[in-house]
Amino acid sequence: MRGVAIAGFGLVKIGEHWNKSIKDLFAEASLMAMDRAEVKGVDHIYVANMAGAGLQSQLNMGPMMAHALGLAGTPATRIESGSASGGLAFHEAVKAVSSGINDIVLVGGVEKMTDGPPEVVNTSIAMEEDQEYTAYTGITKIGLSALLHRLYMNRYNVPPEDVAMMAVKGQEHAVGCGHAQYPFKLSVERVMSSPMEADPIHMMECSGIGDGAAALVLCPADQKSTAVEVASSQVSTDAYQITDRDDPLTLGAVERAADRAYNAVRITPGELDLAEVHDDVSINGILSIESLGLAERGEGARLVAESGTDLDERIPVNTFGGLKARGNPLGATGLYQLVEVAMQLEGIAGKNQVDGAEVGLAQNMGGTASICTVNILRRTSR
Amino acid sequence: MRGVAIAGFGLVKIGEHWNKSIKDLFAEASLMAMDRAEVKGVDHIYVANMAGAGLQSQLNMGPMMAHALGLAGTPATRIESGSASGGLAFHEAVKAVSSGINDIVLVGGVEKMTDGPPEVVNTSIAMEEDQEYTAYTGITKIGLSALLHRLYMNRYNVPPEDVAMMAVKGQEHAVGCGHAQYPFKLSVERVMSSPMEADPIHMMECSGIGDGAAALVLCPADQKSTAVEVASSQVSTDAYQITDRDDPLTLGAVERAADRAYNAVRITPGELDLAEVHDDVSINGILSIESLGLAERGEGARLVAESGTDLDERIPVNTFGGLKARGNPLGATGLYQLVEVAMQLEGIAGKNQVDGAEVGLAQNMGGTASICTVNILRRTSR
Repeated sequence: MRGVAIAGFGLVKIGEHWNKSIKDLFAEASLMAMDRAEVKGVDHIYVANMAGAGLQSQLNMGPMMAHALGLAGTPATRIESGSASGGLAFHEAVKAVSSGINDIVLVGGVEKMTDGPPEVVNTSIAMEEDQEYTAYTGITKIGLSALLHRLYMNRYNVPPEDVAMMAVKGQEHAVGCGHAQYPFKLSVERVMSSPMEADPIHMMECSGIGDGAAALVLCPADQKSTAVEVASSQVSTDAYQITDRDDPLTLGAVERAADRAYNAVRITPGELDLAEVHDDVSINGILSIESLGLAERGEGARLVAESGTDLDERIPVNTFGGLKARGNPLGATGLYQLVEVAMQLEGIAGKNQVDGAEVGLAQNMGGTASICTVNILRRTSR
Repeated sequence: MRGVAIAGFGLVKIGEHWNKSIKDLFAEASLMAMDRAEVKGVDHIYVANMAGAGLQSQLNMGPMMAHALGLAGTPATRIESGSASGGLAFHEAVKAVSSGINDIVLVGGVEKMTDGPPEVVNTSIAMEEDQEYTAYTGITKIGLSALLHRLYMNRYNVPPEDVAMMAVKGQEHAVGCGHAQYPFKLSVERVMSSPMEADPIHMMECSGIGDGAAALVLCPADQKSTAVEVASSQVSTDAYQITDRDDPLTLGAVERAADRAYNAVRITPGELDLAEVHDDVSINGILSIESLGLAERGEGARLVAESGTDLDERIPVNTFGGLKARGNPLGATGLYQLVEVAMQLEGIAGKNQVDGAEVGLAQNMGGTASICTVNILRRTSR
């Protein structure tokens, strides 16, 4: 196994891109990444996309994107694991370079959610859960998270405002972020007075619907003196339904992936300089913070509410706004997180910069944490 | 990079499995493969599935299948590239073991096509083509192949009966094959008198709709003395639309993947003992035979018609019937091919056995050859 470095990255501002196709979006982010990496071609392309079958009636996106980049002929693989598609595609891309089978690999994620009617977005998101068991009952993915939210508040005696602060802090970080879908502040009062999406989850605790694409170019660590390398890339899964877990507030997939990553890098969670976590709804961000070992059980919401995850505090979290504020274009989300960590480690994060950031983590989940990827990047001397 | 061996394999008879879910089918083939490999767990699971979003409204099948196998926690990745999903998942599984990141890997493919209404099968298959350009016109995937079929007959002055012999020979090989969907003989007259699916393609030149699953367990070549190892695993893509290719009868993705594989193994096509090729419709099988270098351009149909691909002839092709007769459960098809090659090399192919088979090839395509995987397996001393 050889080391893997980040040779380049690119992303598109998340929003409503009515005038751009999924090919356009994918190509825009990918060509940006390739320009930055100073490569004209790659050995393999990994395409992360979740809901293209429902939203664009499009499968087989690997060769489609290779062709869209002017690289027809290049081997290409589409990876899908619901909302974890991006982080998982990155994991497979790391394997490809690490194996020595590929040298230069492009991994890009794209999702175009504003094309389709809202019900197709909703049914696509429901496809992350077991159709024969969970989704069949009619419960939505946010409905499942609402059960966790209620249980969390009850068990740990946490006020709803503390959980809502996950969204408030994300929005704070997104102000002035060029690629964020919602780059503006949000008060906790505004969150609490927004409509109920699924009691006790308010609309303003949920990530929105957006179009976006993000991409990275990977290369062998010894072939190019780049600033950022992959310290560890881990994946784990859990019982598919939350009802099959010993304790639904324990995100086993997150814990296992994180533990393996920390062991591989030989660090403790406290040694991380920043973390991008999967806050598709605020409670999932809070539970992720805890399962990543950044706060004790039941303490995650308070850590956030007491500003412990601010940019200049103990553990900066979601430094460009996270899924809530930067945006959550499903299959691309995990790659936005990784581009953001790379930007931090390269010191080009502008007003979002975490001073002296050397080690950063990206955590990306699919389903209700039925799968989780944890990727840790590290700055090396150029 | 280290060598990769086949530790075990399993498959389900292709048919109409009304009483089995996609989880049941996947688990049945996978547990068979794990039993044969004598393993209770694996380091990573690759799931090949193409049309689950349309047919079962199911995404995120990685953790679903891990859980279904009693292996919740095990990392899992779903791979999709249309009908090439199976071969591509195998390619990624080979990378995983080759890299040293994973030791024991399960790669399984599943498709359950008889569940949904026929129009969902048709729209799912259309998703392998570009929705904004090709499928948008209303042409079906078989319609695209019909253009190639007509062009082939015209350019090389080939009678339609010669192309149809691809189906006839497949059906001949399927007789007595336990896992084949259609294990019976078919006359060329019966093919030619079957209804036109898309002129000049007759219904009996097309693979059918079926449910199935196939799986293999991979391990490092030096960790277990198995009979079969992976000699080379290659992927290539082509211009996504056939209208963007210099010559639509040249399957560039097949040629490139095959050339790389032959070079890696240091053999010529003539040294293969058997080949499983992607005959979703007969003309695609013929063009594949030519692009794989098993026949000269324009000679493929004649090679088949003159029995050159029979089990005891120069180059046995589709030794269990191919997609037409064994069956074509889309995302699982590429893995059926690989299990069949492994069975041949282990010498357990029964009446389908190619005597003394030592090197076999499996070729799996997505779209209209917009992507192709070529995997070559080789028998080693136990």
